[in-house]
Amino acid sequence: MRAMKAEGGWAVVANQETEIHPTSDLSPFAENRLWDARDIPALRLMTDAVHDKGALAAIELVHNGNHAQNLVSRAPVLAPSDMSLDYPFPKQARAMDKSDIRTLRRWHRDAAIRARDAGFDIVYVYAGHRMTLAQHFMLPHMNRRCDEYGGSLENRVRLTRELLEDTKEAVGDTCAVAFRFAVDEMLGADGMQAAEEGRAIVEMLAELPDLWDVNVCEWANDSVTTRFQPQDGYQNDHISFVKAVTSKPVVGVGRLTSPDMMLSMVRKGIVDLIGAARPSIADPFLPRKIEEGRIDEIRECIGCNICIMADSVGAPIRCTQNPTMGEEWRRGWHPEIIAPKGAEAKALVVGAGPAGLECAMQLARRGYDVTLAEAGPELGGRVLNESRLPGLGAWARVRDYRVNDLRQRANVNIYTNSRLDAAQVVELGIPNVFTATGARWRADGVGRSTLRKPPVIGAGVHVMTPDDIVGGVMPPEGPVAVYDDDHAYIAGVIAEKLALAGYAVVFVTPESLVSSFTALTLEQHRVQTRLIELGVDIRCNRILKSLDQGAMQIACAFSGKPQAIACNSAILVTERIRETTLYDGLRGKGLTTLELIGDAAGPALIADAVYSGHKAARDFERPKEAVEQDWFRRERVEPGTGVQ
Amino acid sequence: MRAMKAEGGWAVVANQETEIHPTSDLSPFAENRLWDARDIPALRLMTDAVHDKGALAAIELVHNGNHAQNLVSRAPVLAPSDMSLDYPFPKQARAMDKSDIRTLRRWHRDAAIRARDAGFDIVYVYAGHRMTLAQHFMLPHMNRRCDEYGGSLENRVRLTRELLEDTKEAVGDTCAVAFRFAVDEMLGADGMQAAEEGRAIVEMLAELPDLWDVNVCEWANDSVTTRFQPQDGYQNDHISFVKAVTSKPVVGVGRLTSPDMMLSMVRKGIVDLIGAARPSIADPFLPRKIEEGRIDEIRECIGCNICIMADSVGAPIRCTQNPTMGEEWRRGWHPEIIAPKGAEAKALVVGAGPAGLECAMQLARRGYDVTLAEAGPELGGRVLNESRLPGLGAWARVRDYRVNDLRQRANVNIYTNSRLDAAQVVELGIPNVFTATGARWRADGVGRSTLRKPPVIGAGVHVMTPDDIVGGVMPPEGPVAVYDDDHAYIAGVIAEKLALAGYAVVFVTPESLVSSFTALTLEQHRVQTRLIELGVDIRCNRILKSLDQGAMQIACAFSGKPQAIACNSAILVTERIRETTLYDGLRGKGLTTLELIGDAAGPALIADAVYSGHKAARDFERPKEAVEQDWFRRERVEPGTGVQ
Repeated sequence: MRAMKAEGGWAVVANQETEIHPTSDLSPFAENRLWDARDIPALRLMTDAVHDKGALAAIELVHNGNHAQNLVSRAPVLAPSDMSLDYPFPKQARAMDKSDIRTLRRWHRDAAIRARDAGFDIVYVYAGHRMTLAQHFMLPHMNRRCDEYGGSLENRVRLTRELLEDTKEAVGDTCAVAFRFAVDEMLGADGMQAAEEGRAIVEMLAELPDLWDVNVCEWANDSVTTRFQPQDGYQNDHISFVKAVTSKPVVGVGRLTSPDMMLSMVRKGIVDLIGAARPSIADPFLPRKIEEGRIDEIRECIGCNICIMADSVGAPIRCTQNPTMGEEWRRGWHPEIIAPKGAEAKALVVGAGPAGLECAMQLARRGYDVTLAEAGPELGGRVLNESRLPGLGAWARVRDYRVNDLRQRANVNIYTNSRLDAAQVVELGIPNVFTATGARWRADGVGRSTLRKPPVIGAGVHVMTPDDIVGGVMPPEGPVAVYDDDHAYIAGVIAEKLALAGYAVVFVTPESLVSSFTALTLEQHRVQTRLIELGVDIRCNRILKSLDQGAMQIACAFSGKPQAIACNSAILVTERIRETTLYDGLRGKGLTTLELIGDAAGPALIADAVYSGHKAARDFERPKEAVEQDWFRRERVEPGTGVQ
Repeated sequence: MRAMKAEGGWAVVANQETEIHPTSDLSPFAENRLWDARDIPALRLMTDAVHDKGALAAIELVHNGNHAQNLVSRAPVLAPSDMSLDYPFPKQARAMDKSDIRTLRRWHRDAAIRARDAGFDIVYVYAGHRMTLAQHFMLPHMNRRCDEYGGSLENRVRLTRELLEDTKEAVGDTCAVAFRFAVDEMLGADGMQAAEEGRAIVEMLAELPDLWDVNVCEWANDSVTTRFQPQDGYQNDHISFVKAVTSKPVVGVGRLTSPDMMLSMVRKGIVDLIGAARPSIADPFLPRKIEEGRIDEIRECIGCNICIMADSVGAPIRCTQNPTMGEEWRRGWHPEIIAPKGAEAKALVVGAGPAGLECAMQLARRGYDVTLAEAGPELGGRVLNESRLPGLGAWARVRDYRVNDLRQRANVNIYTNSRLDAAQVVELGIPNVFTATGARWRADGVGRSTLRKPPVIGAGVHVMTPDDIVGGVMPPEGPVAVYDDDHAYIAGVIAEKLALAGYAVVFVTPESLVSSFTALTLEQHRVQTRLIELGVDIRCNRILKSLDQGAMQIACAFSGKPQAIACNSAILVTERIRETTLYDGLRGKGLTTLELIGDAAGPALIADAVYSGHKAARDFERPKEAVEQDWFRRERVEPGTGVQ
């Protein structure tokens, strides 16, 4: 994965947070480890691969203090002062004494040397995301020490200064020493501010690191979604002072996908180097495309944070825009290269939602003769509609990138307003058919929480689904109840849209939080705050029982106690029904290929639909047995290698 | 770990759920895999080790249907009918068609053959915990099929029958084929009942498996904690019919730790074999101890479900009673064997809570001359007090097992009512001192959610902590507000105790659920339900701002909107302060060993305290460098071995 970024033209490829010691064990999150020399070979795989493609390799050494739970290592948790973990988990961190600090410095120095031995060119000291001890020592509310590591700013910065000096001394002869620093906590006067201590710290350490890597914290602010921050370069106002303070090069981030914005940032003297995590996930070849003037070919990050969701659940990384992300090694997928066709063939893709567009585009790239038929007047499917909801405008990039690509290909024919039934498809005579016909939301309230006892839907309440709202149909006047048994973003966005349009909205969900899934994309707090601020009446832990006579009857998910909510309309956001009529009609009709892809195969995230379309295109012409047998390469522990 | 159970006398050692295919990918939970032949070597390690110790090895083959999220494999999710996942995750399962069912049977048959090749003696077909396709097909609310796999009970059982027949045909010549079946969903008429379809299914399949392994579902009912089900053998009433229906042997479970109960179950004809998960975790040597008449030495499971917590967070298993659980391979710890002393030495353990008791016991087992000094009149520390709270009585087993052991050892002196200060310890002249002095709860409301802005504690509200309540002190008459920023069990138990005592209780927490951590021990739903039923007024997502003038001021965790709660008393459950006065006083006093253990080193779970005491005893006499260097053996992926 990282070699792919090197190949794509990034000058430096950094790995993520790398734990320097078992007392900084980030499990269950899958971060890098450099606990001891046993971890060098795995990291060497990365540095060799990155060097092989002509880039430098950087490592972000961290000790995570109370941000680590040490669930695997069962080690003591360390912090500047006694305090709780950074999770609602019944375990506390202990204040480090002087001896602990000396030991920590030794661990960090030893890790820096191991990093150099693993082939890294740039070694980080890390004080970002409010996730590392270096930063924890800086923050007054986390550092209540009375010794020379607490109190004055000079004292609170002492540990960081020592780590920087130690690292330079240990590996500074061969490696650059970078410093990642969150200059602002984005809490105004309640936290560290770029204009106050943030700046003072940069002044104090100005010439010590070889590279300043600056951002804001916490993670939800650093990696904010487009839903809550549509503008890229959103960190510029906070970091722009840094270059005036130091003569060392400065790198910054901020979901930077636009070459114009990048150029302007360098020209204005905000940064010397453009940093990127999410934009490099969506398009590992972003620099190469800029270099070669292929700006239209950039696959822009949509800022949905599905990449972060994967990290949050301990799964391999994935990306809505780039279905090859995380599949480079295990499936051998390359974001820019796909196997050319084995033989001349014609393919029909029915449905131009995310799965259909991706499938058609990849089939076209392989050189097949592709026909794309869309029932509606526009391309994009669910992504087209959902991108019209509040905050989701950038999601249209999923469509735009693919449509732009398809329109330039001579081997692609695109038809809109072309709903096809099975007979018409057979008549077309195209032997390979991919049906990406999507899914529609159920209107009967059946879902995860009501599967055993389906709700009673009577008369007297206007029942709608997300399909109505995203299609532009609004409820009749009067109070609306939104019932969310889906827990992703859509019900929360709909409630927001309705509240903005002036409806009195009650939001009912069996979960204990609004849009609980969005906690994984770092959005949940903002979602629920926004709905509260818009006056939405939120009823969590409630299950739908019936809709009848102007009321939604709900029951407490714990006690079963009933409650009635007066409403004129109800939006039921529970489950989707796969649209498989065409697929079913085509079975047994002698087609060479008949594949069901996207939401029609299994309703899920847009990222899953894109992946499904991509995989179908990759697997086309491969024997079914080969596809099934070879799920992917897997890492395995060799019996016997566990011995120290 | 499993070899240890074999050594401990269990006739059969079964592994946990073992995924048969990438479409049943239970990640992020760490279950076993047998996706293909690449997984055989890892499982062979288990069967060889188990056989070596004289037991049979069993494997629980599962396909988890919509209970699998397929987060790693990204495979389609399968189910009898279209439906949501068994998690609030935006992904749906697709109804399996006939071809899918044929393929599933092939996967299962192939996995059975791989299981045999890996050396297993008993191969399971699994329809338990509402977690597998075999059971999903049986349940009418999950199976809405109209073909021969849906509708009548005969049809809904067809898949299970086929899987049993397939497995017998594939490996029945060399392996026994067991069937795990949840006979009752514990939902009364809303679910499958033992007296109705549960029994009918046993009758239909009576002689087909070689072994019936029966229980109830869902997991929270099968593995209920002592807090909510103090009686062991609690499944007997539900499973007792099975032996009357089949001539095949029957095994059952139910947190069985009492040999008398086991004997009575066999004598009464309820089961032929005693099954155990949690009791075998707390004491892998339970059968051996029964066989040898060492009943008093059984380390009884306390039913706290910390083992399940670890599974729920994707961490290695651990146990409150047995600190060696999960450490067998990586640390070489044996539950019954500990290295004898290297040299004569005297040790003083101060504090007889869970850490001190475990440390003293293990030091005594190693042969040292041990003095245990407890300030209070009784042994047990926090576990003694907490075991007096509603539902936590069985937790006293942590103390009882250790005190019973210590009292029988000639090399142990135990002193109660013996609070020691540093001068007194020095005067004792014991050169090796372990301070297990515990922690006390803060009374200032500072904790995870109030660290940045500590609450204002004024006059006019009686402020108490869990130490008061567990110590038997009750609030003055009048309404009580319990503020929980700890999120484990204690605040919920205290609210329950106060409500039972007739207080009007308001429960305030910054989390969205009451005692959110208890979701990981399968208790959260019961905890919140019980508080609601007791009339406790629950305010989630609320942060403590002040206590003053007869009111607790709280603010919405999202919007900051303030709210006042009238109360006479407040119980603040936020963080604990480590009691290190003695330890601090002894530093630099020339002791050979001075170790801080348990909550005094880092407040955490009782399981962590026991582990800490155990580790200190194991590490005694080891050079500090060796202890630090050798954290534990680790599994590693060898570079290059990832290739298929």
